Amino acid sequence: MKNTAVDAVALSVRTLTIDAVQAANSGHPGMPMGMAELGALLYGEIMQHDPGDPDWPNRDRFVLSAGHGSMLLYSLLHLSGYGLPLEEIKKFRQVGSKTPGHPEYGHTVGIETTTGPLGQGVANAVGIAIAEQMTAARFNTADQTIIDHHTYAIAGDGCMMEGISSEASSLAGHLKLGKLTVFYDANRISIEGSTELAFTEDVAARYRAYGWQVLEGDAYDADAIRKLVAEAHAETGKPSMVILRSTIGKGSPNKAGTHGVHGAALGDDEVALTKKEIGVDPKEMFYIAPEATEFFAARKAELAKAHAAWKQTFDAWGAANPGLLAQWNETVGGGYTALLKDIALPQYTVGDKVATRKAGGDALQAIAKMLPNVVGGSADLAPSNNTALPEYGDYGPDNPGGRTMHFGVRELAMSAIGNGMALYGGLRPFVATFLVFSDYLRPAIRLSALMQVPLVYVLTHDSIFVGEDGPTHQPIEHIAALRAIPKLRVLRPADAEETGEAWLMAMEHSGPTVLALTRQGLPTLEKADASWKQSMRKGAYVVQDADSPDVVVVATGSEVSLAVEAAQASGRKVRIVSMPSRELFEAQDESYRNSVIPPQLPAVVAEAGIRQGWEGIAPRSRIFSIDRFGESGPGTDVAASLGFTAENLAKMIKNA
Amino acid sequence: MKNTAVDAVALSVRTLTIDAVQAANSGHPGMPMGMAELGALLYGEIMQHDPGDPDWPNRDRFVLSAGHGSMLLYSLLHLSGYGLPLEEIKKFRQVGSKTPGHPEYGHTVGIETTTGPLGQGVANAVGIAIAEQMTAARFNTADQTIIDHHTYAIAGDGCMMEGISSEASSLAGHLKLGKLTVFYDANRISIEGSTELAFTEDVAARYRAYGWQVLEGDAYDADAIRKLVAEAHAETGKPSMVILRSTIGKGSPNKAGTHGVHGAALGDDEVALTKKEIGVDPKEMFYIAPEATEFFAARKAELAKAHAAWKQTFDAWGAANPGLLAQWNETVGGGYTALLKDIALPQYTVGDKVATRKAGGDALQAIAKMLPNVVGGSADLAPSNNTALPEYGDYGPDNPGGRTMHFGVRELAMSAIGNGMALYGGLRPFVATFLVFSDYLRPAIRLSALMQVPLVYVLTHDSIFVGEDGPTHQPIEHIAALRAIPKLRVLRPADAEETGEAWLMAMEHSGPTVLALTRQGLPTLEKADASWKQSMRKGAYVVQDADSPDVVVVATGSEVSLAVEAAQASGRKVRIVSMPSRELFEAQDESYRNSVIPPQLPAVVAEAGIRQGWEGIAPRSRIFSIDRFGESGPGTDVAASLGFTAENLAKMIKNA
Repeated sequence: MKNTAVDAVALSVRTLTIDAVQAANSGHPGMPMGMAELGALLYGEIMQHDPGDPDWPNRDRFVLSAGHGSMLLYSLLHLSGYGLPLEEIKKFRQVGSKTPGHPEYGHTVGIETTTGPLGQGVANAVGIAIAEQMTAARFNTADQTIIDHHTYAIAGDGCMMEGISSEASSLAGHLKLGKLTVFYDANRISIEGSTELAFTEDVAARYRAYGWQVLEGDAYDADAIRKLVAEAHAETGKPSMVILRSTIGKGSPNKAGTHGVHGAALGDDEVALTKKEIGVDPKEMFYIAPEATEFFAARKAELAKAHAAWKQTFDAWGAANPGLLAQWNETVGGGYTALLKDIALPQYTVGDKVATRKAGGDALQAIAKMLPNVVGGSADLAPSNNTALPEYGDYGPDNPGGRTMHFGVRELAMSAIGNGMALYGGLRPFVATFLVFSDYLRPAIRLSALMQVPLVYVLTHDSIFVGEDGPTHQPIEHIAALRAIPKLRVLRPADAEETGEAWLMAMEHSGPTVLALTRQGLPTLEKADASWKQSMRKGAYVVQDADSPDVVVVATGSEVSLAVEAAQASGRKVRIVSMPSRELFEAQDESYRNSVIPPQLPAVVAEAGIRQGWEGIAPRSRIFSIDRFGESGPGTDVAASLGFTAENLAKMIKNA
Repeated sequence: MKNTAVDAVALSVRTLTIDAVQAANSGHPGMPMGMAELGALLYGEIMQHDPGDPDWPNRDRFVLSAGHGSMLLYSLLHLSGYGLPLEEIKKFRQVGSKTPGHPEYGHTVGIETTTGPLGQGVANAVGIAIAEQMTAARFNTADQTIIDHHTYAIAGDGCMMEGISSEASSLAGHLKLGKLTVFYDANRISIEGSTELAFTEDVAARYRAYGWQVLEGDAYDADAIRKLVAEAHAETGKPSMVILRSTIGKGSPNKAGTHGVHGAALGDDEVALTKKEIGVDPKEMFYIAPEATEFFAARKAELAKAHAAWKQTFDAWGAANPGLLAQWNETVGGGYTALLKDIALPQYTVGDKVATRKAGGDALQAIAKMLPNVVGGSADLAPSNNTALPEYGDYGPDNPGGRTMHFGVRELAMSAIGNGMALYGGLRPFVATFLVFSDYLRPAIRLSALMQVPLVYVLTHDSIFVGEDGPTHQPIEHIAALRAIPKLRVLRPADAEETGEAWLMAMEHSGPTVLALTRQGLPTLEKADASWKQSMRKGAYVVQDADSPDVVVVATGSEVSLAVEAAQASGRKVRIVSMPSRELFEAQDESYRNSVIPPQLPAVVAEAGIRQGWEGIAPRSRIFSIDRFGESGPGTDVAASLGFTAENLAKMIKNA
């Protein structure tokens, strides 16, 4: 790429950005203007990609962690020949456009992950780089290399301040992710003003402490950037942090280098002055330099050729390795159905007392045996979460094919790394911690749900029955708070058998799933519904019935067996409904819902958490819940202290 | 303190710990055993405190960030003469005891903050150190120094891995908190095994990069620790990180240095072997070395004397500075009532269109003018949150009396620092960000609620009306998810006037308050209830009424004015209820509730967020909610696209 082409592309990024933001009268021009040259080099020269096939599995991945700079990405996607027409850029930030305020995965072609909440993109990129290593380890052979690419991210000052990037970067250094390069747009401006107000640490020294190679240079010297990228590529044993000294809003004569250009349109006058400054006629709207257009037309053809060459290698590899090809087609290639049907879940006998965290671990082993793409781990709680996969080795720099991950005590990064791994395609990652720490995961769980990535969250110790660790470790509001997230599937199975099915449901699902599992043992229940496995997929089913029942008790998780006990003590004819997923149940048609919970019968709900959300199923006076923080003591003592006992539930059933 | 006394205290910490954990058959013996000598030195020699008066304002503060090591704290509180009898230690982790699994503020004497969720204690300690500086700046005079003390914390490997400690430590370095010392218990063991599994960064180099003084030594060399603490004290321009190489479970012949001793009782055999190893008769239960008892008896008297000397200074200061003394008594000393009554909130005229974030900012200025202890800031969103206090200067190393804080893009640390500041006593801190980023704050908000500290959360941009920034920035589930947290007060005011009152309610409240405020302008409403300010304190009131209304619309925040518009269009006789706090309303007696929402009338609910939790007030079909992620576009366009319009609400009211 000639430097004149770099300049032409960068100029076009600037003009598209300022006009799009001005047209919307909303947006963040400063970052795209500051990073335009780097963007030009990435999309025009550095990255191995194919605008004609955004799904090419061996493409380099690019993550815009500073997602507010979305116009950088949209400009480059348009210019480099992805299917993002100029008309869409003209509709920046409008309802229905392909150019929303922040880049959205699945909404716009060529977007690898949804960003905006700062720092998460860095962790996504770490997850992607991990996935690349894992996929390469699974499929490359001595004869053919079919996965071998880099992962790039651009992060801003805000990303560097967020704790999640610290967590993810520490882990990336530990894992020696040599093919990960993060560019740090060091413009030293944040919304409140100079970063000197709050951020004076030595970022370079910090990243060196994490075990990264740290490189520094000028964001506007193309040759220097090329040299830095070559150094980043050359260092295969460490991730690279490339700190680029930059100017926010570069090109704007009056606003460059100020926080005024971070998150607001330049204004018509300054747009005109900026165009003048960079040599564009102020009357030209959405101007694109001809050399940029010409350059990318030629470049697109070259890239398609590179992709075609890769395809030849891939075909030769497939012919030589039919077993691997079959696995590739099952995993990277799409669905998992052919592998799913052969999973032999552990069997349990009615009455067997098993903690669902234990049953979850056993189901995971059975699933991992059939699905080689199931990988994951815990934020340092594997022995408690039962999420290790000891048969397949630890994943790490010396064993990229290992399947048990050690995230360390870094919950939020774990979740966002899991998102990155799931986004990569082909892997079925899971992550794990205590349910109470879903609070730490929450910013990334929301993105799992928004992006609908197939990440499984194993969240154990799901109620006050955690016991002695006390209120800081006892979830109360967490199940309700997770159910609150749109499009997040939350499953709270009632026994070991339901847990196995819940794991299968998670694997069948194309979006994220939370499995809320118990610390304490639960009896395996006899199921009144002979086709309970199918019914469970509708969210709820009749687990125990009576002849002409006169009351229905709806319960989840550990409260289903509590309800069985209470029902007997109540002396009434009780139907007990297990409802592992309220959302799935509520999505069923009325006839199914009424067949499970007949509207003419009084309903009682039991769940060891807050009442919120259950009022749609039973009136407040018939919701057996815990609406206060817990306390420290053996689980059953805590339950007794809070009055959360079968005896009290029986009273409520009696009076229903 | 003689080294033999250090040894005697450390030995007693170990015996109390292993017996207490063994009796509970639950707990974390490893950390207290590993840190016993440091604990002995802190409570016996280093710390300026008074076990006879745990509330002494000028005491050194100690935070056990590695809260699972609670037996270290309980042992030392008992030994050093706080009112924590041995009987309570024998009831470790039992319901009703003063010795829960993790230290709980307000539950046990001498506990400065609730810890357990890792990393938060480091941020609490940063907040406490900030509060010390601020309080010293407010009250010390040229003649008398009444606030001058250190803040200490012990953090473990887990704390060091958590992003929150990175955020907080980066800010602490920036703020040059010279009186903060964090001891890092570098035992290199976590739950899954050696920290080598996931954590190989250079912590010392990282902290140097943050601008800390980093010191290293042996956790079992008392003289070395004394020297390190002296160095920490001598460096007044930087916080100090003291890395102590330690052995988890020190003293246990077979389990020391292994992850087996982290979170489980040693077992009777190993308890006996440990006692033997450290020179205690295995038959002695809860053994305390006589020299430890003698030492602390003498030390307690010395410390009381130091406190008495301080009291003399304080009295002289009070006599010489009656104005400051009055302020002290109003703030550090307790309530704020005398100052609260003089606050002159801004006045608005019916119809004035004001964003509640703007009204919130104006109310804050009025409050800050009367209450000199109101301090706080935003995680780099002050211009959007309207939370700067420009009249009183920026808080920082050169201006400890400044009142506007710049937290940087560090939401979670901000919240936990706010908790530390609120715990300190005397200050009324507030923190701010976008409501959607309450997800990042959540682990610390939960602790605000659990501890009931008076921290105000200003969370603006509270719905899809955020507009162009799109789904990553549009709260949907957040209000419901915040209401889910027990004992958290969530207020969503409907207009500028309610916003002022909401701010006052927050200041009157002794626990945490969330203020959910709009980005967009809202008309100031005429209130049907003449005593609406009192009624608002009951959670809800009639803002607009009709003669013999035939339907009630309950709304919050921006949906109250939407309801006013929709009510007119509906053609029905509508009563409109503004419900800034559902929780407060639900806590009222039935007669008040029925007077506001007469049960014989059909109710409709309107809120620009998920339905969850409203089913107790109206059936699902009459809840006007948003149960999906939003989209990018101008706010009103997004609302139209989602069907969240006055027109559609009017239809629902018509059909109710």
